[in-house]
Amino acid sequence: MAVGLSAAKDLLPVKGIRISTAAAGIRYKDREDVVLIELSDESQVAAVFTQNAFRAAPVVLCEQHLSKANPRYLLINSGNANAGTGDLGMQAAVKTCEILAQKTGVSQQSVLPFSTGVIGEILPTQPFESVMPHLVNELDANAWINAAHAIMTTDTVSKGVSKTALLSTGTITITGIAKGSGMICPNMATMLSYVATDAVVSREKLQAMLTDLVDDSFNAITVDGDTSTNDSCVLMATGQSGVSLKTEQDEVLFLSSLCEVMQTLAQAVIRDGEGATKFVTVSVESAENKQEAKRVAYSVAQSPLVKTALFASDANWGRILCAVGYSGVKNLDVNSVSIYLDDVLIVENGARAASYTEAAGSQVMAQEEITIRIVLNRGSVSTNVWTSDLSHDYVSINAEYRS
Amino acid sequence: MAVGLSAAKDLLPVKGIRISTAAAGIRYKDREDVVLIELSDESQVAAVFTQNAFRAAPVVLCEQHLSKANPRYLLINSGNANAGTGDLGMQAAVKTCEILAQKTGVSQQSVLPFSTGVIGEILPTQPFESVMPHLVNELDANAWINAAHAIMTTDTVSKGVSKTALLSTGTITITGIAKGSGMICPNMATMLSYVATDAVVSREKLQAMLTDLVDDSFNAITVDGDTSTNDSCVLMATGQSGVSLKTEQDEVLFLSSLCEVMQTLAQAVIRDGEGATKFVTVSVESAENKQEAKRVAYSVAQSPLVKTALFASDANWGRILCAVGYSGVKNLDVNSVSIYLDDVLIVENGARAASYTEAAGSQVMAQEEITIRIVLNRGSVSTNVWTSDLSHDYVSINAEYRS
Repeated sequence: MAVGLSAAKDLLPVKGIRISTAAAGIRYKDREDVVLIELSDESQVAAVFTQNAFRAAPVVLCEQHLSKANPRYLLINSGNANAGTGDLGMQAAVKTCEILAQKTGVSQQSVLPFSTGVIGEILPTQPFESVMPHLVNELDANAWINAAHAIMTTDTVSKGVSKTALLSTGTITITGIAKGSGMICPNMATMLSYVATDAVVSREKLQAMLTDLVDDSFNAITVDGDTSTNDSCVLMATGQSGVSLKTEQDEVLFLSSLCEVMQTLAQAVIRDGEGATKFVTVSVESAENKQEAKRVAYSVAQSPLVKTALFASDANWGRILCAVGYSGVKNLDVNSVSIYLDDVLIVENGARAASYTEAAGSQVMAQEEITIRIVLNRGSVSTNVWTSDLSHDYVSINAEYRS
Repeated sequence: MAVGLSAAKDLLPVKGIRISTAAAGIRYKDREDVVLIELSDESQVAAVFTQNAFRAAPVVLCEQHLSKANPRYLLINSGNANAGTGDLGMQAAVKTCEILAQKTGVSQQSVLPFSTGVIGEILPTQPFESVMPHLVNELDANAWINAAHAIMTTDTVSKGVSKTALLSTGTITITGIAKGSGMICPNMATMLSYVATDAVVSREKLQAMLTDLVDDSFNAITVDGDTSTNDSCVLMATGQSGVSLKTEQDEVLFLSSLCEVMQTLAQAVIRDGEGATKFVTVSVESAENKQEAKRVAYSVAQSPLVKTALFASDANWGRILCAVGYSGVKNLDVNSVSIYLDDVLIVENGARAASYTEAAGSQVMAQEEITIRIVLNRGSVSTNVWTSDLSHDYVSINAEYRS
């Protein structure tokens, strides 16, 4: 059960985007597993990909295509990641783009392919041949919900959100979907996310915004510390609203809406983290710089001992303090560190706070949503990382599912 | 159940070392939880400690005492780590040394205190007062087994080993004990280890040997990636055999025996890792340097996805490849990487080996002891890291036990 999260609903269409889905039987029967996203001509597309050295064939191909042409189609499959598949995997990825290009008349380079699912098996291309006529014929502006469902793997609920913003010359819409549940880590995780807007934004600006916002959304989450081979986040601007970011105020409004969409999607991935029973914000304050703030936050957020204590609702602050201690921050003065569970001060000057009572700590730990706040008292930089607990179900899911 | 490991037995006495144990009721009743180790005059002592910034009071005090006097006594308790306890914790640690010093007439600085157990509770000193007469009166050269038992926390079996070596001028003995099961990670983990020899070795040489060998033993293991606040490894040389390291051959023989003792103890900690059902050697070969070899080895050894696949005996080589990929090694050419499960080649040139069959992989994964061999083909440096799987019992133990 996802923590404080229900399935995506009320996703707004984005002018210039049409979507279709199909059940191609790539790995599972009786469920939709292929998504086609069509972008109107002159749409701008930005993307970020996994930093794993073993990048899946579709990731490598996406980057090549992005450097050669303006994308017109995104072709996404779940069930098979086409990763660790060598030359044959690359040939399969190319083939899926060819099939679509032939059917639609666009160049092969205008197609961006994405895969998620089992690693190490060659992606079969026949299923794409079979469903392509259906996909191309059934494109529909209102199919975001279907896409959110079709890209799921171990996800228990679909993830999507829409926002509108009134800028100086009109209203723009942003809609995004995401998938991901395990193998979630900084630097993109097994995570696919597609966010589209009808605002007019240049490709350069779009890429800069995406790179910036990913750092505080999809690169600020962890379930298990495993960065996958296939992670991709795509930001598309069709410009079909005719509304551009004219003023500084427009830009701020647009950025904050986009940030909200991306953080909501990133947090949804954690809320649906494999076996998650808690949604935990690790907030590090007054660090010297962002890097050390993230380092401390991830050290705590990835500690199996902290995560099992969270699962047990055990206010075991010693494990939090211990994880701060081994985060590797240079010259950390432990006597300056304070730690809070929500508003309850648990550690002060590097030791248990005099005011702390087990009852107060336990009350916070019993909640489904918890903030662990770590004040380093070294500088003025803050950061948040979101994580889940480590439960029996995490082990069951990953011992039984072949990802 | 520990993997391929039974309780310590046949531990040889080391001339110049006497040991006693007592049940002080520090946390648990009806079990021994305090150990006293007495060293003969002129013994030499080397030590390495946790690199966690939050070092427990006894660790800080040990370092101070080591810089001031030659140790005559080691005073160890289980049940309470005396970590995260601030000034009061330090006062308690000092007090335990005082109690022993008063009873024996040695200086307070000649006592090294060690604690392991729950974090964040002040160590009570009254139990030390109560058992000290018994401890001092019952010192016995043959009590190593009792000490191995008394230092246990979540350990399921006691850990100890002895070796003798015939050097050019006589036979020397090395006996070591260790405790540790969870919160196990590079840089010492919640791990206490005491190794003693009757060989004649200077303090400088002893410290150099320890620092060197720790890197390939206690700093080459991981259960959960958590480095504790209390880890300590002490190497003692009483010199009472009268046998010194006269020749180069003597030194090689001594070092290899010591290495075997330390690796056996380190591996015992992993074999008894919390909830472990497998003992796994991650062997990285032909790396450019030791640092990148360890980085790749730990990336695989700490991946929750690899560890749950090991628990499930699932030959999910994609997760291994993925963990190699996100290890962060610069300019890693994935097309050069080969991966083996024992002798079964699973990944070649960065993709599934043509010769690989699921049946062959599954046969290895079904074993209790497995070697994951990763050949980077970048250089000539190799390293081993030892780890366990991630099981339901790991979650149960850590959700239920307050460490």
